[in-house]
Amino acid sequence: MARPKNDNFLRALLREPTDYTPLWLMRQAGRYLPEYCETRKRAGSFLNLCKSPSLACEVTLQPLARYDLDAAILFSDILTVPDAMGLGLYFADGEGPKFERPLREEWAINDLSAPDPYDHLRYVMDAVAEIRRALDNSVPLIGFTGSPFTLACYMVEGGGSDDFRTVKTMLYSRPDLLHRILAVTADAVTAYLNAQIESGAQAVQIFDTWGGALSHAAYEEFSLAYMKRVIDGLKKTHDGERIPCIVFTKGGGQWIEKIATTGCDAIGLDWTTDLGEARRRTAGKVALQGNFDPIALFASPEAVAREATRVLDCFGPGNTGHVFNLGHGINQHTPPDNVAVLVDTVHNYKRK
Amino acid sequence: MARPKNDNFLRALLREPTDYTPLWLMRQAGRYLPEYCETRKRAGSFLNLCKSPSLACEVTLQPLARYDLDAAILFSDILTVPDAMGLGLYFADGEGPKFERPLREEWAINDLSAPDPYDHLRYVMDAVAEIRRALDNSVPLIGFTGSPFTLACYMVEGGGSDDFRTVKTMLYSRPDLLHRILAVTADAVTAYLNAQIESGAQAVQIFDTWGGALSHAAYEEFSLAYMKRVIDGLKKTHDGERIPCIVFTKGGGQWIEKIATTGCDAIGLDWTTDLGEARRRTAGKVALQGNFDPIALFASPEAVAREATRVLDCFGPGNTGHVFNLGHGINQHTPPDNVAVLVDTVHNYKRK
Repeated sequence: MARPKNDNFLRALLREPTDYTPLWLMRQAGRYLPEYCETRKRAGSFLNLCKSPSLACEVTLQPLARYDLDAAILFSDILTVPDAMGLGLYFADGEGPKFERPLREEWAINDLSAPDPYDHLRYVMDAVAEIRRALDNSVPLIGFTGSPFTLACYMVEGGGSDDFRTVKTMLYSRPDLLHRILAVTADAVTAYLNAQIESGAQAVQIFDTWGGALSHAAYEEFSLAYMKRVIDGLKKTHDGERIPCIVFTKGGGQWIEKIATTGCDAIGLDWTTDLGEARRRTAGKVALQGNFDPIALFASPEAVAREATRVLDCFGPGNTGHVFNLGHGINQHTPPDNVAVLVDTVHNYKRK
Repeated sequence: MARPKNDNFLRALLREPTDYTPLWLMRQAGRYLPEYCETRKRAGSFLNLCKSPSLACEVTLQPLARYDLDAAILFSDILTVPDAMGLGLYFADGEGPKFERPLREEWAINDLSAPDPYDHLRYVMDAVAEIRRALDNSVPLIGFTGSPFTLACYMVEGGGSDDFRTVKTMLYSRPDLLHRILAVTADAVTAYLNAQIESGAQAVQIFDTWGGALSHAAYEEFSLAYMKRVIDGLKKTHDGERIPCIVFTKGGGQWIEKIATTGCDAIGLDWTTDLGEARRRTAGKVALQGNFDPIALFASPEAVAREATRVLDCFGPGNTGHVFNLGHGINQHTPPDNVAVLVDTVHNYKRK
């Protein structure tokens, strides 16, 4: 397998020169697209959509048919891994994800083990392979996982949370139990990403959605350390090509010097961080991905273009090491036409 | 009026030596205290409680009767100011604050004016005076306000929001309208804090609860600039005593160098920021307040003490310029006994 025809995204992650600033959008295959909603309806449920390789492939490709994006990202959910660990993922109507068997008891935590990704998560690997065939080397395919800490939040809370009271109580009172969960989850996630890479993922991203809810000290001990453990265990090349790895801690702007030491190739940033400052602070050790405020996509087309230009200006001169993205997943109510404005603005931008 | 008998809090804010690290807790008069719930029930509603000077005084003093805290904070709500501006504040059951007349129309924004705090907010000034009499110079009384941007979020959204879509759409598409709201609100808030100071508040805090939802660039233009405008207009002394001012931007840890240039005496920090790093970054220009994770109060008493000690250690040697606090308001389900453990740990701590 050769590099894709458009490899600007991979080159940016490896801090090689690119023709322009490449972009993709977190959650680019999602509910803001009517064609996604149509496929999702056909699937019957969100979980069916995740678990059907052909439907997952279909929705993965939808944003690429509409927009000139520089990467595809596997359509899946970060909670497929704890589901494969036996926690029983389900989606209650309008309530977000839930687990039938949240991790609360010491015996259940001791019993936890990492699933074989080719067995319990076979449907993900099949989707990766099918998407790669469908992409036909046009743009690279990104694989992904939740970070061990972010997955542990859902596993212990049993669903989403405003204040993470259950998992943080464990963190402060019984850190040994949380460390056990994180160690097993890190092993699970490492095997899961490696299986995605073997199945055709050409870059991987670790979504640390909730690491930013931790104190700086707890972040290092309970989130960053386990992401480093995952990165240490990742295949660095496949079929002769480097497989770059992106770490995205939402709300992690204060910790990027530390994130840069994990061995990742790029750091994802939300919109609260100044890209130019981040570039200076990480001193060319990593590429940077981000960081357009997704809510700015609700503004007028002129304002979308102005804000995208401001973000690009912020990164500063030179076109190496920047992947344009949102600072968080695209909102489900986003007007699709504004996404076209964003893509055009980024691709037509001339670096000073 | 002389300085209070226990003036450790004021001295810490002014970076003068203190006997120990003083502390108070954001939302220390609140629902985690059974006696507060009893008074609130008697008041009939939350708004009645805010608008009755004698009941507001009663709940302000409750946490001081239980715990050896180093400051009292006026019991009130940040939304009394937009209420006085005519937006019609109400609390729908279990839904948080709402406004009957959110600011959406250009004519309504142009009509907006700053209320006379001695007229429409007389009940707040009466509460301040009554609390000062009741405190009898034991500990200082803190006055407060929401930041102009945080108030504008509620005023434009018409209530709380997950994504601030309405106010951010205005920010990106019609910044002139948002600037107009912020200018009037800054004037309102300045007059409001000065009236609190004249009525007896011995320090003031600006709560910028939502500034952290902005991009770094928008934060400077739409939140920080207006807090600076408020601080510029504040009475710096009253009755011969300095009135220190604290700025707390939740999620603002990346911007503290800039916050330190507003003329504030202290910066409030949430738990994501390393206190020692913050001290180094602000180079003794301001005092620091914080930053214990309020959810750590759900842990075991031993864990509460351990985490409090870690926060104090983080600040580093020397006992000037640190006010211990939570990194956000205390959670309503907090076990009151753990608050006693926290207070004891902080007061018994010996700086290295």
